[in-house]
Amino acid sequence: MSGTMKAYRIIEWGRAPEIVDVPVPEPGPGEVVVRVAGCGLCHSDLDMMRMPKDVGESFGWQVSFTLGHETAGWVAALGKGVTGFAEGDPVALVTPSSCGECWYCTRGQDNSCPSGLSGRGYGEDGGLAEFVRVTSPRALVPLDGLDPTTAGPLTDAGATAFHAVRRALPRITPGGLVTVIGVGGLGSFAVQYLRLLTAARVVAIDTDDARRALAEELGAHDSIGGIGPTTVDELRHMSDGARGADAVLDFVGIDSTIEAGTAATRPGGAFGLIGAAGGKLDNSWFAGLPRDGEVFTFQGSNISDVHDVIGLAEAGAIRNDVRKYPFDRVAEAYRDLEAGLPGGRAVVVL
Amino acid sequence: MSGTMKAYRIIEWGRAPEIVDVPVPEPGPGEVVVRVAGCGLCHSDLDMMRMPKDVGESFGWQVSFTLGHETAGWVAALGKGVTGFAEGDPVALVTPSSCGECWYCTRGQDNSCPSGLSGRGYGEDGGLAEFVRVTSPRALVPLDGLDPTTAGPLTDAGATAFHAVRRALPRITPGGLVTVIGVGGLGSFAVQYLRLLTAARVVAIDTDDARRALAEELGAHDSIGGIGPTTVDELRHMSDGARGADAVLDFVGIDSTIEAGTAATRPGGAFGLIGAAGGKLDNSWFAGLPRDGEVFTFQGSNISDVHDVIGLAEAGAIRNDVRKYPFDRVAEAYRDLEAGLPGGRAVVVL
Amino acid sequence: MSGTMKAYRIIEWGRAPEIVDVPVPEPGPGEVVVRVAGCGLCHSDLDMMRMPKDVGESFGWQVSFTLGHETAGWVAALGKGVTGFAEGDPVALVTPSSCGECWYCTRGQDNSCPSGLSGRGYGEDGGLAEFVRVTSPRALVPLDGLDPTTAGPLTDAGATAFHAVRRALPRITPGGLVTVIGVGGLGSFAVQYLRLLTAARVVAIDTDDARRALAEELGAHDSIGGIGPTTVDELRHMSDGARGADAVLDFVGIDSTIEAGTAATRPGGAFGLIGAAGGKLDNSWFAGLPRDGEVFTFQGSNISDVHDVIGLAEAGAIRNDVRKYPFDRVAEAYRDLEAGLPGGRAVVVL
Amino acid sequence: MSGTMKAYRIIEWGRAPEIVDVPVPEPGPGEVVVRVAGCGLCHSDLDMMRMPKDVGESFGWQVSFTLGHETAGWVAALGKGVTGFAEGDPVALVTPSSCGECWYCTRGQDNSCPSGLSGRGYGEDGGLAEFVRVTSPRALVPLDGLDPTTAGPLTDAGATAFHAVRRALPRITPGGLVTVIGVGGLGSFAVQYLRLLTAARVVAIDTDDARRALAEELGAHDSIGGIGPTTVDELRHMSDGARGADAVLDFVGIDSTIEAGTAATRPGGAFGLIGAAGGKLDNSWFAGLPRDGEVFTFQGSNISDVHDVIGLAEAGAIRNDVRKYPFDRVAEAYRDLEAGLPGGRAVVVL
Repeated sequence: MSGTMKAYRIIEWGRAPEIVDVPVPEPGPGEVVVRVAGCGLCHSDLDMMRMPKDVGESFGWQVSFTLGHETAGWVAALGKGVTGFAEGDPVALVTPSSCGECWYCTRGQDNSCPSGLSGRGYGEDGGLAEFVRVTSPRALVPLDGLDPTTAGPLTDAGATAFHAVRRALPRITPGGLVTVIGVGGLGSFAVQYLRLLTAARVVAIDTDDARRALAEELGAHDSIGGIGPTTVDELRHMSDGARGADAVLDFVGIDSTIEAGTAATRPGGAFGLIGAAGGKLDNSWFAGLPRDGEVFTFQGSNISDVHDVIGLAEAGAIRNDVRKYPFDRVAEAYRDLEAGLPGGRAVVVL
Repeated sequence: MSGTMKAYRIIEWGRAPEIVDVPVPEPGPGEVVVRVAGCGLCHSDLDMMRMPKDVGESFGWQVSFTLGHETAGWVAALGKGVTGFAEGDPVALVTPSSCGECWYCTRGQDNSCPSGLSGRGYGEDGGLAEFVRVTSPRALVPLDGLDPTTAGPLTDAGATAFHAVRRALPRITPGGLVTVIGVGGLGSFAVQYLRLLTAARVVAIDTDDARRALAEELGAHDSIGGIGPTTVDELRHMSDGARGADAVLDFVGIDSTIEAGTAATRPGGAFGLIGAAGGKLDNSWFAGLPRDGEVFTFQGSNISDVHDVIGLAEAGAIRNDVRKYPFDRVAEAYRDLEAGLPGGRAVVVL
Repeated sequence: MSGTMKAYRIIEWGRAPEIVDVPVPEPGPGEVVVRVAGCGLCHSDLDMMRMPKDVGESFGWQVSFTLGHETAGWVAALGKGVTGFAEGDPVALVTPSSCGECWYCTRGQDNSCPSGLSGRGYGEDGGLAEFVRVTSPRALVPLDGLDPTTAGPLTDAGATAFHAVRRALPRITPGGLVTVIGVGGLGSFAVQYLRLLTAARVVAIDTDDARRALAEELGAHDSIGGIGPTTVDELRHMSDGARGADAVLDFVGIDSTIEAGTAATRPGGAFGLIGAAGGKLDNSWFAGLPRDGEVFTFQGSNISDVHDVIGLAEAGAIRNDVRKYPFDRVAEAYRDLEAGLPGGRAVVVL
Repeated sequence: MSGTMKAYRIIEWGRAPEIVDVPVPEPGPGEVVVRVAGCGLCHSDLDMMRMPKDVGESFGWQVSFTLGHETAGWVAALGKGVTGFAEGDPVALVTPSSCGECWYCTRGQDNSCPSGLSGRGYGEDGGLAEFVRVTSPRALVPLDGLDPTTAGPLTDAGATAFHAVRRALPRITPGGLVTVIGVGGLGSFAVQYLRLLTAARVVAIDTDDARRALAEELGAHDSIGGIGPTTVDELRHMSDGARGADAVLDFVGIDSTIEAGTAATRPGGAFGLIGAAGGKLDNSWFAGLPRDGEVFTFQGSNISDVHDVIGLAEAGAIRNDVRKYPFDRVAEAYRDLEAGLPGGRAVVVL
């Protein structure tokens, strides 16, 4: 396992990443090295490629590092003292480098661990390489029957959408209405979780016809082709007694989706903002937010979410559509991602 | 009980209310008439006095009606079929006219009942009169030892603050930090509840020295004289590990309190907006709201909150400071309220 | 609507009920009279038929009264002041006579209202008659497309099972295991709710082959033919990592089901006892109950549960199998119920 | 730090422990060795001293091992790769050896981790020695101002009582009633937490006058001298509307406390069994348990509980009374513990 390997790395802030040769990592005490089977690509990678130096460094990141934070593969080498895993075990990788020891981690809220600001693929070497080093076995989720080539997106796209749905669950009632705005890589998972875990009517909103069709195929009861002046009224009238939506999950996150989404949420309902587009609500909060409701945002996922999502996939309860690219076409894969995939994630096969 | 009585009424939208003679109400079947002992005054009354007709009517309100929605007194007459109460029983009145039957009411979330948009004192005849009619006994909370002259504010100022604290409780940890912005009529109740129901450090923020002093007297561990450029940092450093506040309750609700309050909230913490000043957050929500936290607003209170608050007052666990005015000085009382009371509520004694 | 009607009544404690003539009820102020379409039969009716006088009176019940507490029909007459309903509206009836005003009712926990110890069909006149009087509109749930002839069981068998599932939901994880012991009239609803609201593996236990087959048809992933010495181990090994069940819902409630059920529950899981057979756990609780788990029992249902269940049925999400009997064969229907129906409820059509 | 040290060890099952010489432990990679300042004694130690071999081995424990699981001291040596701590740092030790990686640990429910069946002081070398080895830094809680000589009991007696109170909190209402049965080493902590975190009336039950007096000194509003035939009625009448207790926490756990405790709990209330005396309820659960209530037991504590309790002690919010013994009088300390201390814990000073 010594020698060098190819890795797709950000060498310098603001410059396109490159495939370069780097040493194969070795596991320190308590660490594990994983041979990568496949690694999913994420829109946030595109942001990182263009990130100004000062922004990157404000997160504590230093170049260069290998991209890729939706990784799965097989255990390749175990550091001293690691138990519970053997070479060859198929595993998916939790991405954030949470510490396991702090106030948040010991509460099961590792998505808020200060160490989680960096992770494999952002600030640390990620999965777009033949091997990746994992600093704690708690980041490994065993795969029981799932193909590690394609399991990577479950740990990020899948888990982030799951965390959002889980946050909203207590406010979703049988026969209620739930709206998912944006049914691409994350939102299409959300639609599936909502059908599995609620008896609510699920409505998908997307300007893209193919995505909307996929959302309906994945279980959405209905779909709408974007936000217009009558969308809020339309949604209200889809709900029992025109109460409004029990929950709106916004995977886009521009001003217009936030405005419509909060307006369509019933009193006591939840509006979750998962899309990172930087929008906000331009009205008075007191008048504009759902009465006695709940707004939440930017939450990533916890290790327990990844376990749950992998469990759902193993049970055949969810679909994880991917389009595969060989490693030497990783740049093309990112271009396709940017242009907009009809559904599912792009995965680079190592 | 027949004849007429004096009542302080909004006669016409946009015109100052007047004391006029109106018939004493009689209880229909299932209703109760209460002789008013005292009625608290609320800032929202001032808004109503100046409300444009179209705004008022958008809530379904028609003039004229008697003001006053913080009422307590004694049962004066029982309608047919009412049990559980007797003439002379001291009672406080829940204000909103929730229906008791709908999807929300049967879930104990009567603060979201569509019928609750109007209530005694807004759209219906309220407590600034010798007698007030109550359409259902569920709006009556028996007083066991409390003076009905002063109990009124507990049902609104007291209960609204309680509901907000109750919403935030699950996110408040022992040794955590909680910030109350604005410690006037409502915020000073919040400080007391937080000391009773949490083991967190409570910090009060107010530009008014007398209010800050009162907040500390009521249990705030510390206070800050307003929001400045360093307030967020200051608050963070007051919290263990500079995590930020478990909860910020904003009883002011302008842009600057919302911006500082959301920024000072820790990941997974709660920001509650109770102040009706119409502010908003001008930053990206994704970047600006507390990571995986909870934002809530405009929630009023449920009947159960009123029961709980009355219970706390009866047990001597909270203080309810009031300044009393005779009925014929009600206009002066409103002027003092507008000018800013140092703490506590103004109550008109009938 | 004046005159007399036939009603199936307990005339004297300990004696078989009889069909007798009684006056048609009239609605007082705030009340509603409903023309019965159909009324479901419940095992608890059989207990009432044989109940010793002192037990019945300990609940505050007086003979004679009309049996039947799973009722639906059409609004026939409205008392003074009732709004929101019109003659002819199809409605299902919430059974317990909760007051709507007390500490419990205003919290949405009307299943614990002291007045709920009696209800239509136990202590008060129930639905096995042409008409039934309802003392508050909050007990009426509008039917939007459901046949009132068969909707009655949803309000009791359906809602009680729903309440139990809802209690357990926060402890049920994706990929977890849930066991339903006894899949008759109530348990077969529970299986359906669990499939709708969780992504757990559902295992039904019943000694009756036909019931087990029905449970699998309704969605149970697997079934077991009763409790034996190896059942607990078997259940554990069905769960991921042999953790044990996230939840066990026991609709039988004898010693052996309680012992096996609590033993099969994982740490932090829930054991719900809904079956009224009077069993208990004969081991040390400290050693025998699931570590840091939750045990709950005897919970009936809230009005909100009935709304939710009716909503699910209206959406076509659940099946409500019934066997219909004409009114003059009500005694035969009870005999069949006692002998054991293969699945679903017996409903008497009025 | 090499050489030998004195340790109080169980050498053989069923035989009294002895002070013997053992090697000073050295930290492996990722481990920490702590110099013990003080170690609290627990009733469960007495059970271990007399434990039959087969019972001990059923937990996976092997003799010999050093007793003591309420330990605090100073960091003495850091293994490879440990960050965040320095030699000399004062720390308290979480006792159970939870793994930090499993389904339970990543959910913050480390009290249910399968590896937690053994821990420092039960099955592994504990704190009744000059030094103790800690296999993960997540078991270390920094002490900010607390004396490590006496902090040990906070991690077990203090944290177990805290976990129980925390479980019951959502069911405890302002003005409600909470009963603590048994106010010794654990129950006296519970009384304090209840006063800090609720606005309920707290009633302590104990047959020992001195303990009862201490409970009142620590904040109990009232106390009762044991369980008698009228205790349940007495408790009910102490509660508002004779509803019963919001929560009963039973730190004794014999049949009579369980029977009285469950009977005194209101509908929807919580009964928590923390005492390990092996009792059970001899009535039908359906009739005997609180309607729609919650029963929980045997829960230990999570790492987050220890953090919270240490935080409360650092803030001066709770009292931790201890009686100190020098190490060479450890056997005498256990004899005093068995005879019954009037309050607080016995701590052996190293």
